[in-house]
Amino acid sequence: MGNASDESAESGEHRGGDPTRPVTIAYIAESAGVSVPTVSKVLNGRSGVSADTRARVEELVNRHGYRKPSAGNRNNIVELVFRELESMWAVEIIRGVERVARRHRVGVMVSEFGLHDSAGTALWDDTVARRPQCVLSVAQLSAAEREELRAKDIPFVVFDPTLDLPDDVPFVGATNWAGGRAAARHLIDLGHRRIAMINGPETVLCCRARYDGYRSTMEAAGLPVTADLVVRADLTREDGYAAAAGLLSGPDRPTAIFTANDLQALGVYQAAREAGLRIPDDLSVVGFDDLPVVAWVDPPLTTVHQPLTEMAVAATELALALGRGEPAPQIGLEIATTLTVRSSTAPPRR
Amino acid sequence: MGNASDESAESGEHRGGDPTRPVTIAYIAESAGVSVPTVSKVLNGRSGVSADTRARVEELVNRHGYRKPSAGNRNNIVELVFRELESMWAVEIIRGVERVARRHRVGVMVSEFGLHDSAGTALWDDTVARRPQCVLSVAQLSAAEREELRAKDIPFVVFDPTLDLPDDVPFVGATNWAGGRAAARHLIDLGHRRIAMINGPETVLCCRARYDGYRSTMEAAGLPVTADLVVRADLTREDGYAAAAGLLSGPDRPTAIFTANDLQALGVYQAAREAGLRIPDDLSVVGFDDLPVVAWVDPPLTTVHQPLTEMAVAATELALALGRGEPAPQIGLEIATTLTVRSSTAPPRR
Repeated sequence: MGNASDESAESGEHRGGDPTRPVTIAYIAESAGVSVPTVSKVLNGRSGVSADTRARVEELVNRHGYRKPSAGNRNNIVELVFRELESMWAVEIIRGVERVARRHRVGVMVSEFGLHDSAGTALWDDTVARRPQCVLSVAQLSAAEREELRAKDIPFVVFDPTLDLPDDVPFVGATNWAGGRAAARHLIDLGHRRIAMINGPETVLCCRARYDGYRSTMEAAGLPVTADLVVRADLTREDGYAAAAGLLSGPDRPTAIFTANDLQALGVYQAAREAGLRIPDDLSVVGFDDLPVVAWVDPPLTTVHQPLTEMAVAATELALALGRGEPAPQIGLEIATTLTVRSSTAPPRR
Repeated sequence: MGNASDESAESGEHRGGDPTRPVTIAYIAESAGVSVPTVSKVLNGRSGVSADTRARVEELVNRHGYRKPSAGNRNNIVELVFRELESMWAVEIIRGVERVARRHRVGVMVSEFGLHDSAGTALWDDTVARRPQCVLSVAQLSAAEREELRAKDIPFVVFDPTLDLPDDVPFVGATNWAGGRAAARHLIDLGHRRIAMINGPETVLCCRARYDGYRSTMEAAGLPVTADLVVRADLTREDGYAAAAGLLSGPDRPTAIFTANDLQALGVYQAAREAGLRIPDDLSVVGFDDLPVVAWVDPPLTTVHQPLTEMAVAATELALALGRGEPAPQIGLEIATTLTVRSSTAPPRR
C-alpha cells in the first residue's frame, strides 16, 4: 500500500536485452519506439494500432517473455471515485458498491476530487498507486485517466457517464431516454397537451436523453414541442424555480411540467406556490431520480425512479469481473428506470 | 494490504527468552501471565492495571526491548465504519473525512456493517487487517472492538456515540443538550407555553440529551413538562407522524412541537396537514439535524443544525493525530449546534 507502486513492480521474466533492467510495459514501449498506451492496446487486443506496430510489439513481448501483471498483483480494494460528493444520491451509490464488496470481501476506498485541479492529480496518483482490483468512477473518466489505468492493467467502469465515451469504455447507466418517454407518456395519458420541460445543461448526456425521450413521445402524440415549452436550467432547485417562474408567468401557461431532475421539481413546487397554483389541481409535475426526499414533500412527487443502488451493484460486479480477467458479458449497460406515480400529477382542469 | 497482518508483524528486537520467537505484544502478555489488552493498557499508560502487574509487564518490556509498533507499520488509510449507511447524513460525514484525508493524502476506506452479524465480523477482521492509520466508527464501537484495536495499536475515534462510553474512549459528538435548550428557548421566546416534544428511543444517548435540554429549559421558564406533552417514537418520518397525530388529537393540543430529529418533524408536517392545521399559524415545529431537504419543504423547517461535516473534520484530525502518536489536546469533544430559524415557527395565535 501507499506510494510504493511503479512500473518495475510489473516486471515479467527477463530474457535478452539489458539484463539489469526489468521487463516492464514501459521497457517494451521504449524498445518498440511506441507509447505505453499503444503497448497496452496490443496486450489487451484493442483496435487503433497499425498492423506493423502490433507485429513489432508482439515480437518484443514474446522475445522478452513479458506477461501482463495479473490480479494477484492488485490489492483487495475497489476504488470508488466521485467528482462531486455534494450530490444527494452519493449514499445510494456507495450502498450498492458496499453490497457487492461485502460479498466478495473487498474493501471500498472512496475519494472525491475534480478532474483538473492539482489536488485532484495527487489524489488520482494515490488512487492508481494503491493498485486496486478496479476503479469505479462516478460520471467521468478522462481519456488520459483511462489510458493510464489501461497501461497499469487496472480495470475500470464509468458510472452513469455524463459525456460521450468511446465504444470500448465499460459503463453502467440508466435508461434515461426511456425514462423521459415514460414521464411524457404519463402526462399525455392524463389528458395534458401543453407539457413543458425544464431541461438540464446541454453538456450533460443524461439530460439530452431525457429530453429526447420527452420530445419524441410528444411528437408521436401529435403535440408540438414549441420553443416556449422548453427551458434549459442547471440541475438545482434554485434554477428549477427560476425556470418554472418564467414558464408559469406567460399567458398560455403549461398544465404540466416535466423536469430533468428532482431538485428542479422542488423548485417548481416553490414557483407554483408563489404563483398561487395548486399541485396537482392547477399544475402537474413529474421529476427524475426519485430521491428519498421527494416522497415526503407536499404533495409527494411523481417521478422517474433511477435505480442508483442497482446500477452501483451492476457496475461493481462488472468491474470486479473485468479485474478477474473474465470476459465481460457486455461492455456497458443501462438499468431500467421506472415511473413512480405519487400525488403531483392529475388530469388537467382546462 | 490484505489479510497478511498478524502479531508477528509487530515484533520488536529480541533479547533473551526463546530466541526463535519474535517479541510481540502477545509474547509479552504470555510471559507476564496476563491478557494482551492488559499489556496494551500498560504500554499506553492507561489505568485499570494493578501496580504489581504494571511492574511485571514493564520489566518484561524493558528486558526484551519491546517497542510498540509505530505508525510506519500502518497503511496510509483511514477506515470509516458505518453501522448503517441508510442515513441521510452519511454524505455529510464522508465529505468531512474526505476533506481532511485529502489534505494529508490519506485514502478513505468506507465500510458498512452491523455490530453482531457474522458478515460484520469478517468485515471487521478485514478492517483491522488492513492496518489503517486509524479507525473512525460512526455511532458505535464495542468494548471488544476497542480492545482489539488497542492491542494492535490502531487509534480510533467514535463519531457521535449513541451509547455511554468509558472516559478513555476518544469521541466527537455535537452539543445535543445545548441544542435541545436552544429549541425550547426559541419557542418559549415566541410566546408558546404548551410545547410538546417527540423524543427518540431511550437507548439513543443524543436523544436523551436533547430531551434533557428541552425539559430543563421548560422547567426554568416555569412551564411544567407533563406526561401528555412528551411522546417517545422511533427516529423516522412515519413514527413522527403517528406521534404527532396523537398529540394533535387531544382537547388541549400543544401550540408547538419540538422533535428529536428532522425526519420526525416531516411526519409532524403530514399530521398537521391531515388535521387541517397550518404551520406555523396553528402549530410551530422545530426539528433537529438540519438535513439539506428541510430547507425545501413547505414551510422551510426551523431546526437545530448539527455540524456533521465539521464533526467529521474534527474526528478525522483527532484520529490522525492519535495515529501519529501525538498527545491529543482532548480525548473527546462536542461541536456546537446552532439554531437555524426558518418559517415553521411563529408566535402562537391563542
